[in-house]
Amino acid sequence: MTIQRIGLRPEKSPLYNKAVIHGGVAYLAGQVAVNPAPTAAEQTRQILAQIDDYLSQCGTDKSRLLTATVLFADMRDYAAVNEVWDAWVVPGSIPTRTAFEAKLVTQHNLVAIQVSAAMP
Amino acid sequence: MTIQRIGLRPEKSPLYNKAVIHGGVAYLAGQVAVNPAPTAAEQTRQILAQIDDYLSQCGTDKSRLLTATVLFADMRDYAAVNEVWDAWVVPGSIPTRTAFEAKLVTQHNLVAIQVSAAMP
Amino acid sequence: MTIQRIGLRPEKSPLYNKAVIHGGVAYLAGQVAVNPAPTAAEQTRQILAQIDDYLSQCGTDKSRLLTATVLFADMRDYAAVNEVWDAWVVPGSIPTRTAFEAKLVTQHNLVAIQVSAAMP
Repeated sequence: MTIQRIGLRPEKSPLYNKAVIHGGVAYLAGQVAVNPAPTAAEQTRQILAQIDDYLSQCGTDKSRLLTATVLFADMRDYAAVNEVWDAWVVPGSIPTRTAFEAKLVTQHNLVAIQVSAAMP
Repeated sequence: MTIQRIGLRPEKSPLYNKAVIHGGVAYLAGQVAVNPAPTAAEQTRQILAQIDDYLSQCGTDKSRLLTATVLFADMRDYAAVNEVWDAWVVPGSIPTRTAFEAKLVTQHNLVAIQVSAAMP
Repeated sequence: MTIQRIGLRPEKSPLYNKAVIHGGVAYLAGQVAVNPAPTAAEQTRQILAQIDDYLSQCGTDKSRLLTATVLFADMRDYAAVNEVWDAWVVPGSIPTRTAFEAKLVTQHNLVAIQVSAAMP
């Protein structure tokens, strides 16, 4: 099976690809907000827009999500993040999910989300 | 490849599915004990029973586990959780595993376990 | 699809396999340094050597990596770990990645890395 790599970061040290497609699955890198807004809810909107963009670059979309991991810098943001998440997912096509609290790459990052999705 | 979704939580906001099947793999949501017992060992038994149930709903079982992630709210529970885990896994059919400490969704949740399993 | 399990730890309680192969994907257990060196950079070198070894036992290699998760016991080691990581990955064949801070199994473990790779 071939491997397709999307969105290598040529502008920086190539720490990672934004997405890798293999065996009918698109694996996205864990996303934090590129220009983090001040609140977790706003960052969640930013992250989900980034995910929509990368899914589109892969040739798939959020209706085909398989798995999600949601990392909270502070679990007190749980309800605010979930409200944005709930409005974004496609009813009847919702992925599995794992959620926990973890310190993220910078202090400004309040949320990180990693997903995988099936290809059409 | 088709996507099959198991155990959507209709009683609540549909944050996630309990399991998604795609490409011969069943991905389960990270499980915490639904009615958390007071100790990590007891919660591990509760979680593993939930996982057995969801694997069964997917049409597979613990002898076909591929991967596991075990999250400890307090790493001091490591030995107690592992003892329950060791008694549950099928010798010769054990998944890969990643373990770390993370604060979970509520203070009452001492352990969370996420697995994937091959379909028969 | 068959399941192939690599590197079961017969010397210890069989908590996990080091790698499981299924559906053209090799899933490796999260690796910490077996004999942890004093610095995160050195531990990263040790871990990446362990990963090379397990990928080889699976019959694949780092040029076919799909995903990586990098756990830092202390996010202040981010740059030092990334420098070793950057020198190890194969340009143009870099996996997706998710990174966060988490307390690991022992205080001596400063880094843990989990990867999946495509089989040839």
